[in-house]
Amino acid sequence: MHAFADLVETFESRFLSGLSFPQQPSTLYDPCRYLLKLGGKRVRPVLCLMACELVDDINEDAWHAATAIELLHNFTLIHDDIMDRAPLRRGQPTVHHKYGMATGILSGDVMCIFAYERLAKLHKSMPLILQIFNKTAIEICEGQQIDMDFEHRNDVSIQEYIQMITLKTSVLLAGSLQIGAITGGALGDNANKLYQFGKNLGIAFQLQDDYLDAFGDTSLLGKQNGGDIIANKKTYLLLRALENASVAQKGRITDLLASDGENKVSEMLGLFSDTKADAACKEAIARYSDEAFACIDDLAIPSVRKKPLIDLANYLLVRKK
Amino acid sequence: MHAFADLVETFESRFLSGLSFPQQPSTLYDPCRYLLKLGGKRVRPVLCLMACELVDDINEDAWHAATAIELLHNFTLIHDDIMDRAPLRRGQPTVHHKYGMATGILSGDVMCIFAYERLAKLHKSMPLILQIFNKTAIEICEGQQIDMDFEHRNDVSIQEYIQMITLKTSVLLAGSLQIGAITGGALGDNANKLYQFGKNLGIAFQLQDDYLDAFGDTSLLGKQNGGDIIANKKTYLLLRALENASVAQKGRITDLLASDGENKVSEMLGLFSDTKADAACKEAIARYSDEAFACIDDLAIPSVRKKPLIDLANYLLVRKK
Repeated sequence: MHAFADLVETFESRFLSGLSFPQQPSTLYDPCRYLLKLGGKRVRPVLCLMACELVDDINEDAWHAATAIELLHNFTLIHDDIMDRAPLRRGQPTVHHKYGMATGILSGDVMCIFAYERLAKLHKSMPLILQIFNKTAIEICEGQQIDMDFEHRNDVSIQEYIQMITLKTSVLLAGSLQIGAITGGALGDNANKLYQFGKNLGIAFQLQDDYLDAFGDTSLLGKQNGGDIIANKKTYLLLRALENASVAQKGRITDLLASDGENKVSEMLGLFSDTKADAACKEAIARYSDEAFACIDDLAIPSVRKKPLIDLANYLLVRKK
Repeated sequence: MHAFADLVETFESRFLSGLSFPQQPSTLYDPCRYLLKLGGKRVRPVLCLMACELVDDINEDAWHAATAIELLHNFTLIHDDIMDRAPLRRGQPTVHHKYGMATGILSGDVMCIFAYERLAKLHKSMPLILQIFNKTAIEICEGQQIDMDFEHRNDVSIQEYIQMITLKTSVLLAGSLQIGAITGGALGDNANKLYQFGKNLGIAFQLQDDYLDAFGDTSLLGKQNGGDIIANKKTYLLLRALENASVAQKGRITDLLASDGENKVSEMLGLFSDTKADAACKEAIARYSDEAFACIDDLAIPSVRKKPLIDLANYLLVRKK
C-alpha cells in the first residue's frame, strides 16, 4: 500500500513520461504538453489509484483510468480558463493566452478525446466505467454552465450554490474514487460509499476555498484576501450573508457589490462577520467534512487500508492557507 | 434494404426524437438542441447505417453509433464556427453568435461527451468501435489545426492540402462506414475497404467543393462564385495554380491575394484557367471518385446490396451546384 505523497510522485512521473500525444501538429499538441507539465496536485488521479488500492493492488486499468481522469480535468481547465478569461493558471500563462483562443479550444477538445483513448484501453468493466466517466463529465459541464448563469442572477440560493459546486468540483473527486474502486474490483456498496465520500469531501474543500479566500492567512495564501469579493463572486459567504442580513445590512452589501471602492474588501469582510456568514461557512465545512469521514468509516474495508485516503482528506481539508 | 433518402428520413426522425439532453440547465442544452434541429444532410450517420445494412439488418448498435457520429460531427461544427468566427451555419446564426462564445464552447463540449454516452450503450465490439471513434475524432482535431496553420503559411503543398482535407473531412466519412460495418458484423477486409471508399469519397467531395465555389453554376449554388477567393482560402485550385504558374502569373496571383479589388474574383478565376488548375482539379476529383467506386466494386458483398451506397456517392459527387 502506498502513502499519499508516494502515489502523487509515482503518478506524476508515469503520467508525464507516458503522455502519448503525437509530435505533429505541434501547434495542437505543444499546448497540451505545456499545460500538463505545469503540474497541479494530481488529487483526482491519485484518488482513483487509492480507491483501487483500497481493494486490491493497483493494476493497469487503474493507471489508464487515472490518466483519463487527469486528462479530463485538464481539458476542463483549458476551456474554463477561456470562458472565465483567466490570464494565469498555476502562476503561468493560460493555454489560450499563450497560444490563442482557437488553439485553446482545439487543444482542450483533443485532450478530452485522449482521455477517452485511455479508457478504450481498459481490460475490465469498460461499459460501466465509461458510463460513470460520461456522467461525471456531463455534470462538470453543467456545473460550469450553472456557475456562469449565476453571474447574471441575484437570487441564487445556498442550496443552488451547493448543487453548483457539487457538479463543478465534487463529482469528479467522487467519480475518480468510484472508478478507481471498480478497477480494483470493489463491489457496488463500497464504490458507492467512496462516491459519497468524494462528493462530501469536494463540497467541504470548495467551501473551505471560499472561506480561505476571505479569511485565510495572507502570509500562507501568498495573495491578498478578498479576490472573490473584488470579482463579486457568488460564494457561500456572500450568499449566506445576504440570507442572514438585516434590511440595512442587505442594502450595504448591495452597495458594496456595485462599488469598486478602496474599502470594499474590508467592509464586506466585516459584513460577513456581522451576519455570522463566516461562522455558518465554518460550520458547513465541518458538516460536510464529518459526512465525508463518516463515509470512510462505513467502508467494509480493514482500517489500515484506509489510511492513505484519510491522510489525503486531512491534507485537503485542514490546510491553513 | 433501405434507399438513401429513406434512411435520411428515418435517421432524422429517430435522431431528433431520441435526443436525450436533459431539460436543465437549458442555457447549456438549448444551444445543443438548436443546432441539431437546424438540419444538415445527415450523410455521416446514414453512411454508418448503410454500412451496417451492407452486411446485416440495421441493429440497435448501428443506431447508437450513427447517433454518436452525428453528435461528434455537430460538436466539431460548433467549435469550428467559433474558431473560424463564422456568423452563419445552414443559413442561421451559429451557436456562439446566438448564445455567446462561452456557451458555444461548453455546448460543444457536452455534445462531444453525449456522443460517448451513446457509444457506452453499444452491446458488441465496444472497445474496437471506441478506438476507431477516438482515432477519427483526434484526426478531425488535427485537420482543423493544420487548416488553421495553413492561414499563416505560404508554402503549402498539394500533398499537404490533401492530407489536411483527409483529416478534416474524409476520415469521419470513412470512420462512419467502418464503424457501421462493424456493428453489422463485417469482417476486417470489408470494413477496411469501406474505410478506403469513405476516405476517397471525402477527398473527391472536398475537391469538388473547392471547384464549385469557383466555377459552380451560381443559379444552383444560391451564392456568387469565389467566396474562397475573397477569403484567400488555400484551396486545391489556388495551390495548383501557384504550382503551375509562370513567374509572371505567380506574381499576379500574389498581387491578387494582397488585394481587395473589384476584379479579384474574375481575375483569379482567369488565372485558375490559364494555369490549368481548373482542369487539374477536375482530374483529381475524377481520380479520387474512381478510386472510391473501385473500393465499392471490391467489396465481397452482393451487388444489389451496394446500390444505396452507390446512390449516395453519386448524389454527393455529381451534384451540379
